[in-house]
Amino acid sequence: MRQSLHTITVSTRGKGLYAITRAVNAWVGEQGMATGLLTLWCRHTSASLTVQENADPTVRDDIAKFFEALVPESGTRYAHDDEGPDDMPAHLRTMLTHTQLTIPVQGGLPVLGTWQGLYLFEHRRAPHRREIVLHLLGE
Amino acid sequence: MRQSLHTITVSTRGKGLYAITRAVNAWVGEQGMATGLLTLWCRHTSASLTVQENADPTVRDDIAKFFEALVPESGTRYAHDDEGPDDMPAHLRTMLTHTQLTIPVQGGLPVLGTWQGLYLFEHRRAPHRREIVLHLLGE
Amino acid sequence: MRQSLHTITVSTRGKGLYAITRAVNAWVGEQGMATGLLTLWCRHTSASLTVQENADPTVRDDIAKFFEALVPESGTRYAHDDEGPDDMPAHLRTMLTHTQLTIPVQGGLPVLGTWQGLYLFEHRRAPHRREIVLHLLGE
Repeated sequence: MRQSLHTITVSTRGKGLYAITRAVNAWVGEQGMATGLLTLWCRHTSASLTVQENADPTVRDDIAKFFEALVPESGTRYAHDDEGPDDMPAHLRTMLTHTQLTIPVQGGLPVLGTWQGLYLFEHRRAPHRREIVLHLLGE
Repeated sequence: MRQSLHTITVSTRGKGLYAITRAVNAWVGEQGMATGLLTLWCRHTSASLTVQENADPTVRDDIAKFFEALVPESGTRYAHDDEGPDDMPAHLRTMLTHTQLTIPVQGGLPVLGTWQGLYLFEHRRAPHRREIVLHLLGE
Repeated sequence: MRQSLHTITVSTRGKGLYAITRAVNAWVGEQGMATGLLTLWCRHTSASLTVQENADPTVRDDIAKFFEALVPESGTRYAHDDEGPDDMPAHLRTMLTHTQLTIPVQGGLPVLGTWQGLYLFEHRRAPHRREIVLHLLGE
């Protein structure tokens, strides 16, 4: 049994879902572990991780719209507003989704379902560089 | 230290919580590992995992009602509607709950609290066969 | 590769976020593992775990206010009300946040980002003693 650690960086250009499945699978594949456990950790409080359908792009539009309504931006609603009206909603959206995902690895790859994709969910309007730490344990 | 992998299948009959604690504990018990780490991965984007009180059945009714209100079904609200009015809400409810759970194992069993139960949360109306991959690492 | 298990107890005094980063890091540091995987499991269904900004205290007020609005207390809304009007909202808020967090360990510590703090999120009004199981695997 051995471990590997790696950090991937995602350059975001505003709110939305950014596909990371390919980058994650590529790194896992290079480690040459048939069976194991993969963990993704997003090192931020205004961007998060999510698993979503990877097929129909309208799903992403519906997600964006849903979260804008559930956690609205506002210039008056939040006490924490020094970093702009999109900052506190970004923290709340992060809390409601995931900072971390842990996925079994079988046959050298994460056991994602056919329609499952891994995404970084950016909650800020401005471009950011987001770090996701990958940890793989296996043999 | 060694690893075990297994897939359990849950046949659902419409929306709601389906108890999986017994099936999960039975499999973990068979692996004969005193100490370890158990991971559950749900291979779908319209069903999810959750931990809930296992005692009072009215809790499940309240959960159902809450999620219907928080993420309503609609024939007009969502752009992604090819698979019916319950499909996009299913994706959103999955995002707001969990695709994955990782639980320490002590004394041969997951360290669930007295009132904690593990559930598959089905978000579609029609019957489905849901796969949950179990990964156990320990000794 | 070896494992360590430990339980920390947090005494809460009503709803809110309780910082646990220091206690978690202290225990991890004592285990003397340079590289590994840390898992936190909260053994309750009316308190949860979350990762949040550790800098500005107003963030916590906004979080409290947001969750009171998203999952309101009510004497009439919920069927499950034997334990008071804050009990069923506590279960729902737990479902919407996290019972578990798994974090890669590098250089002997969890790879938290600069602004990330770990918190127990208490959802009940009355004081409680909350158990969080820590599991560390590494070398």
